Amino acid sequence: MDAQFKTYWEDFKAGGRESIGSVVVDRDEVIEFAERYDPQPFHVDEEAAKESIYGGLIASGWHTCSMVMRLMCDAYLLESASLGSPGLENVRWLRPVRPGDTLTAYRTIEETRLSGSRPDRGIVKTLWEVENQNGELVLTMSGVNFFLKRQPG
Amino acid sequence: MDAQFKTYWEDFKAGGRESIGSVVVDRDEVIEFAERYDPQPFHVDEEAAKESIYGGLIASGWHTCSMVMRLMCDAYLLESASLGSPGLENVRWLRPVRPGDTLTAYRTIEETRLSGSRPDRGIVKTLWEVENQNGELVLTMSGVNFFLKRQPG
Repeated sequence: MDAQFKTYWEDFKAGGRESIGSVVVDRDEVIEFAERYDPQPFHVDEEAAKESIYGGLIASGWHTCSMVMRLMCDAYLLESASLGSPGLENVRWLRPVRPGDTLTAYRTIEETRLSGSRPDRGIVKTLWEVENQNGELVLTMSGVNFFLKRQPG
Repeated sequence: MDAQFKTYWEDFKAGGRESIGSVVVDRDEVIEFAERYDPQPFHVDEEAAKESIYGGLIASGWHTCSMVMRLMCDAYLLESASLGSPGLENVRWLRPVRPGDTLTAYRTIEETRLSGSRPDRGIVKTLWEVENQNGELVLTMSGVNFFLKRQPG
């Protein structure tokens, strides 16, 4: 069989906690993202943000999630037989994410199982934990992904 | 008291289901968002997307959430005493979102309560349901927001 992808469902095993990479939060990108999708003052306006409970500009929670999504893609999703995700649980924005922060995302595979309805694919449930440069958790979430099996049926 | 905002915690009441607006999904924006944050082939490459299980280009789930966030902002958040959100539950990407789709977001306030620890604020829990132009649900999620009280303490 000529494998098209590096990673299939069979390659995911429950357990462990591993880094999938880091990203530095860019100030201009924080503002650009928020101006388009989440223009609350503490995301787009430096002066207003200083007066807010956050004491300065912070990234939109959606922007933080999106930055982590890119880490997932680069770490393994783009080389995998990914079929996308049906959803997430327990998204927690635990601490503010600020321009200049370095975020590191950690992956713990919680469960893998076969699809009950489709013999060509399986399900991987993952806990995501994202820390800043001080080792403080800023975001946690659990996601489900579908992947094709290397050996269908 | 000189109210700084139009909407405070006291203004949110549980019940009802109301539209907070619509957005047309722009093809170039689907690709641009995904190239930056979620460059899986079915989000960025028209030809590869045709060969995928989705049969054509679809928006990143994070992009769909971000478009809905903008609707929330324009409908009421920007005029409110919003303090941000600690998180989400039950994010479900139920159907593909495609360029040209018109998405309409509906808000149902599930619960409002006072903060247990901070007398100046309250909590609003909301169910979000997002439909396409065919009345099909494409995204649902439950979110929690903090808002300042009009009458603190």
